[in-house]
Amino acid sequence: MHAIFDTIEKPTLLLNEAAVRRNIRRMAEKARASGIRFRPHFKTHQSVEVGEWFREEGVTAITVSSVDMAVYFANHGWDDITIAFPANIRQSRTLAQLAAKIRLGLLMESAETAAALAQALGNSAADTWLKVDTGAHRTGLAWDNLSAATALAQAVQQTPNLRLRGLLTHAGQTYGGRGIEDVCRRYKASVHRIDSLRGAMAQVGPLEVSVGDTPASTLCADLGPVDELRPGNFVFYDSQQLQIGSCGWEDVAVALACPVVARHPGRGEAVIYGGAVHLSKDYLMEGDTRSYGYICLPGDDGWSAPLPGAYVSALSQEHGILKMQPKDLDRLRVGDLVCILPAHSCLTVTLMKQYRTLDGKTIGTMNE
Amino acid sequence: MHAIFDTIEKPTLLLNEAAVRRNIRRMAEKARASGIRFRPHFKTHQSVEVGEWFREEGVTAITVSSVDMAVYFANHGWDDITIAFPANIRQSRTLAQLAAKIRLGLLMESAETAAALAQALGNSAADTWLKVDTGAHRTGLAWDNLSAATALAQAVQQTPNLRLRGLLTHAGQTYGGRGIEDVCRRYKASVHRIDSLRGAMAQVGPLEVSVGDTPASTLCADLGPVDELRPGNFVFYDSQQLQIGSCGWEDVAVALACPVVARHPGRGEAVIYGGAVHLSKDYLMEGDTRSYGYICLPGDDGWSAPLPGAYVSALSQEHGILKMQPKDLDRLRVGDLVCILPAHSCLTVTLMKQYRTLDGKTIGTMNE
Repeated sequence: MHAIFDTIEKPTLLLNEAAVRRNIRRMAEKARASGIRFRPHFKTHQSVEVGEWFREEGVTAITVSSVDMAVYFANHGWDDITIAFPANIRQSRTLAQLAAKIRLGLLMESAETAAALAQALGNSAADTWLKVDTGAHRTGLAWDNLSAATALAQAVQQTPNLRLRGLLTHAGQTYGGRGIEDVCRRYKASVHRIDSLRGAMAQVGPLEVSVGDTPASTLCADLGPVDELRPGNFVFYDSQQLQIGSCGWEDVAVALACPVVARHPGRGEAVIYGGAVHLSKDYLMEGDTRSYGYICLPGDDGWSAPLPGAYVSALSQEHGILKMQPKDLDRLRVGDLVCILPAHSCLTVTLMKQYRTLDGKTIGTMNE
Repeated sequence: MHAIFDTIEKPTLLLNEAAVRRNIRRMAEKARASGIRFRPHFKTHQSVEVGEWFREEGVTAITVSSVDMAVYFANHGWDDITIAFPANIRQSRTLAQLAAKIRLGLLMESAETAAALAQALGNSAADTWLKVDTGAHRTGLAWDNLSAATALAQAVQQTPNLRLRGLLTHAGQTYGGRGIEDVCRRYKASVHRIDSLRGAMAQVGPLEVSVGDTPASTLCADLGPVDELRPGNFVFYDSQQLQIGSCGWEDVAVALACPVVARHPGRGEAVIYGGAVHLSKDYLMEGDTRSYGYICLPGDDGWSAPLPGAYVSALSQEHGILKMQPKDLDRLRVGDLVCILPAHSCLTVTLMKQYRTLDGKTIGTMNE
């Protein structure tokens, strides 16, 4: 068994650096080959040190999900950052400080927000992206509401410190896909919608299109007429991405090592120290079965392939319940470790605050 | 509107100190009147400062959910702590340090764990509780498996540094109850089971019974033949407890203040800055509708009663989607604040790491 496991006393987020670097390189090369600007989303790893591995692959522009995350990365040498979240006018003062310091990209979907920010930014300017809803229905201007999009674009154009860059969407609907054909059909529909809107808005001037979701960015050979790609989760992947078919288990680059604290062979279960405060309560459904992550075992080189038929079936604050086949449960002892592939790695990273690499380095995040 | 709201720029966990102190006093008085030792669970607030408010009500013994939490409170003057989680033998060294310093209570359910700890503790001793499953099926010895419980009790008795205290259960099944009758029927069944086991184990000597779940501890006038009460969530309550009927909305003592960043009146929705990294993805079901928390508005004295028919319908990493009635949505503007009563306050506290009281004090937790 790998030496790292002897040092683990409590839930520990392991990071496979070789897999992370492979994931980064693959996506950077794909964007380059497609002639698309790569602006990876850093909300998954949230770490200056992991960010440096992106820089080694030529990345200079990034995406973040909050103003605090933008401040963190701006304080560590990143000078071209898009905050891919509807601009929060209550944080105008911090946004103005950022705009004075770096090339800042903001998302807007209402004239009220544009007006408030134009005033707050003063002499600094920010790139402005219209957030477009291409069917995920989380937020954004409806892709088929040409008049609303045009009116906002023109309002932005008339504002000297807001530089209109283009249209941005998150095709969240690809997360409902299973396998390459389904994912790419969903992605293609989303790109068709945002590109149609761009075409219809030709009179306002040239507009870029920015997209970025991990399933399509990974799986689709043809990314279509887009200018910028912003995937984030691909840096680690997770059990949800495994289920979608975005990756193989060897690509999942983080796993939560958890001690076994009790066994219940009568009902095919074991209990781990590892709960909602470590993994988050995000999950995936397999038929009617809810899974908070696949279960692997410690091995010589890291963690094993997921055990067939095994999954985390319930989480409370600190407890995790494992469902396992009898032959696997028989081998498991109190005090052993298991490695859980998180359902959703972004949320697990937020909770765990730091990583340990397989060679024993500790890597921090903005949440420490 | 209360002055605190002018100072809020991003998701902020507000704490109503008067409500917290009232919740603590009420539960302490109930335990005292019932002749039951009160050992409140500190996993909900996770804060030394809130802990002092318990001390002012006469509390000297506490419950925690992890070894780290025990260390945190032991470092701040608490010297009688039960870790209400199956003892994790990988943390034996820290447990031995704690046992040398404070009166430490541990939970056991297997002879392997007892043997490993007996060896690790050395010259220090720990109180030992047998973890009993009275029907929640999370973990513990089955209440009707007399031979297993007796064998483990005898093994503990033969171990000089493990002091057998009694039987401990968490009647998690009360969380499935709705209203006082349903909750108390479930609680009574659980107490009946653990008390029966105690009766059947009379030959091993006197055993205490420890229980503690917020719904029953709050609602049931007669707590039955128990020696110790360990509720935790009652300090704040939350939307799940409101749904169970454990409390009124005025008793919910924390709310997440969140800025509105977008409006979608056409589908009765608004978008807030406030997502899974703030609230956690825990939820409640109301019929077929999933709710991540009730929605209140800022008011002169704090937050309002929940808006009828309004709830958080979806969460992603930083986004929250509010469903609201048209008349409430019409009044809401981008940049306004709403106050969300978390679905599960313990998990929200873990993520938010600190509180702000309505009079502007910042209160820390162990997660800062």
